[in-house]
Amino acid sequence: MSGFKQADHKLLVIPGPIEFSDSVLLANATPGTAHTSPAFIPVFGETLKLLRKVLLSSEESESQPILIAGSGTMGWDAVGVNLVERGDEAVVLNTGYFGDSFADCLEAYGAKVTQVKAEVGGIPTDDAIISALSSKPKLITITHVDTSTGVLSPAKHITSLVKKHSPETLVILDAVCSVASEEIRFDDWGLDMVISATQKGLGAPPGLSVVLASKRAVEVSENRKTPQQGYYISWKKWIPIMKNYEAGKPSYFATPPVQLIYALNTSLKFIASKDISELYEAHKAASKYIKDELSSMGLDFVPKSRDIAANGMTAVRFPKGSTAPDVLPKLAERDIVVAAGLHKAIITEYFRIGHMGVTAVDRSRGDLEKVIKGIKEVLGKN
Amino acid sequence: MSGFKQADHKLLVIPGPIEFSDSVLLANATPGTAHTSPAFIPVFGETLKLLRKVLLSSEESESQPILIAGSGTMGWDAVGVNLVERGDEAVVLNTGYFGDSFADCLEAYGAKVTQVKAEVGGIPTDDAIISALSSKPKLITITHVDTSTGVLSPAKHITSLVKKHSPETLVILDAVCSVASEEIRFDDWGLDMVISATQKGLGAPPGLSVVLASKRAVEVSENRKTPQQGYYISWKKWIPIMKNYEAGKPSYFATPPVQLIYALNTSLKFIASKDISELYEAHKAASKYIKDELSSMGLDFVPKSRDIAANGMTAVRFPKGSTAPDVLPKLAERDIVVAAGLHKAIITEYFRIGHMGVTAVDRSRGDLEKVIKGIKEVLGKN
Repeated sequence: MSGFKQADHKLLVIPGPIEFSDSVLLANATPGTAHTSPAFIPVFGETLKLLRKVLLSSEESESQPILIAGSGTMGWDAVGVNLVERGDEAVVLNTGYFGDSFADCLEAYGAKVTQVKAEVGGIPTDDAIISALSSKPKLITITHVDTSTGVLSPAKHITSLVKKHSPETLVILDAVCSVASEEIRFDDWGLDMVISATQKGLGAPPGLSVVLASKRAVEVSENRKTPQQGYYISWKKWIPIMKNYEAGKPSYFATPPVQLIYALNTSLKFIASKDISELYEAHKAASKYIKDELSSMGLDFVPKSRDIAANGMTAVRFPKGSTAPDVLPKLAERDIVVAAGLHKAIITEYFRIGHMGVTAVDRSRGDLEKVIKGIKEVLGKN
Repeated sequence: MSGFKQADHKLLVIPGPIEFSDSVLLANATPGTAHTSPAFIPVFGETLKLLRKVLLSSEESESQPILIAGSGTMGWDAVGVNLVERGDEAVVLNTGYFGDSFADCLEAYGAKVTQVKAEVGGIPTDDAIISALSSKPKLITITHVDTSTGVLSPAKHITSLVKKHSPETLVILDAVCSVASEEIRFDDWGLDMVISATQKGLGAPPGLSVVLASKRAVEVSENRKTPQQGYYISWKKWIPIMKNYEAGKPSYFATPPVQLIYALNTSLKFIASKDISELYEAHKAASKYIKDELSSMGLDFVPKSRDIAANGMTAVRFPKGSTAPDVLPKLAERDIVVAAGLHKAIITEYFRIGHMGVTAVDRSRGDLEKVIKGIKEVLGKN
């Protein structure tokens, strides 16, 4: 069915889910297809390869893409189930709500977690990170973009600190809100695990846990002394399946979300069709446009400076006297859906705008201009 | 977009995924929608209510529907994470491949599992079940339809044995391949947990773990002495979210698969639009047609008798001299996709046909006749 057009709807500009292209949604409406069929196997295999490509990882690095029905959150459990043994030390760099939750998750699997907390809108200092590394923890987690604050952590720099001060420590990047919208160089930086989901920069509906694990991380999982702490999320079960699909062979552990993998495949092919640096630049340009326009309205941002602000979203403070119940419904009346605050310490003080995927890349849609026009009207900034 | 027609494709008649209706697939192509939006909240809430209705459970029973991005397999982990404490005894009634795997899963969470194994094609004897109950295990699992053998376990009868001989034991029904194709009366029978997935009788794409838990099961989970063994699959996290959605309130723990919930909602509304007994009768009639036709070709079945054979699928033995590589590709040439064997002991000896959902209910499609015609041609039984 060519010529498919999605239904009319309000413009979705929250930090995920995002707007999806017609071709991605049509792929999500693929007819009933067997998960072991000759039609589907190469699509799944190609999707795994494309994920490695978009994260700038080579097949030679033997990094392992893992796609399982679930959500971004389930990627945290993948760390707990596969990498954590009870009593292991873990450092969580906390730039907002998602750091707290990641720590909760790792503690559920018996990790001894040390959190390095930043002030709201800030990032942890180098000294605090280096100090936390002195005990040579098993792993360290970085929330690349914490959607509760819109803060972008300097993942490359932090990874280099780890390599210098505790090279055995596994570096886990929570990239749920950064894959395909912020720069990630898996092999060059020496990351051990990228955790993501489909509904943000990857531009497909929610419902898939997206993971890339380094050869080293897989080996740590294989060489653990205690059994993996779970079943459905166990790499021991899934890695042979992923290897088979990538090699073009049918394989079964649990039924994959066939339609959603077709949708992700469609989106990844679009993303990988251009140079990845063009993608980053498109998100930087979208972010600059939105932030410059908001600045010119006299608005302030949650991140303390532009250089630690995400390119795929903006966390912006309300002007004095305005609150979410004044602003968000009026934007919705104009068919613009933004998100309210999430970080408890400042929850009523700000709102969040997403500008990832087609909204950032396909400027002919006019999404960004529509958002700015709507905000100007609602805040009386015309 | 009314008038949506799915792409031409081979007829999918395996024991799941199944054929999906155009309206279900169009719902799976719903535009980007926020998981906390006023548009989506009532859809999710209604879907939870419809699940209870289809399983013949009342709101007054305080049974708890739980829908999480995942797969049918993840429902086993839900038992392990929420109900099993290390050292707990569990009885697994084994009628095929999925009994073995369910036992593996529970052992991963520290359960001491006793398997009551049936012969291939049979069901466990009452004596064996009663004997296994003598130690008053924490829970017992029944694979309602084991898709590796096509055996239908007498879930009502087994549940009555449990109520008589060990009433405190929780009864867990693995109904991945039976919800909406085989009779299940959650409240009347006194089940404690039904585990399912979307891609079989429920008639929606794969990617969602479908669970209904009794008030008693939820209480067992709440009153456990040790913490729940996980994070993403923890009812402690999800039940408040499900209650909020059902009450029409936004709520967030992890992003639900919005599009798939629209699809499931569409399918459940269709299923619930008629009396549920009509649905069972339609599957019985489809099964009778398929099995009678295969019998008249002189073929034998894997289940030892018709009264323990599933109504939503058929496991049928090849005639002497035929094997899967002779038969399945020739059916595929005729645009008919059936499944090869799965049970290791007989894997080369049989194949599997699914007849659930629209294929069974909407006889005007002619799916069943097409399958029989194809098999006759390929086996030279014209």
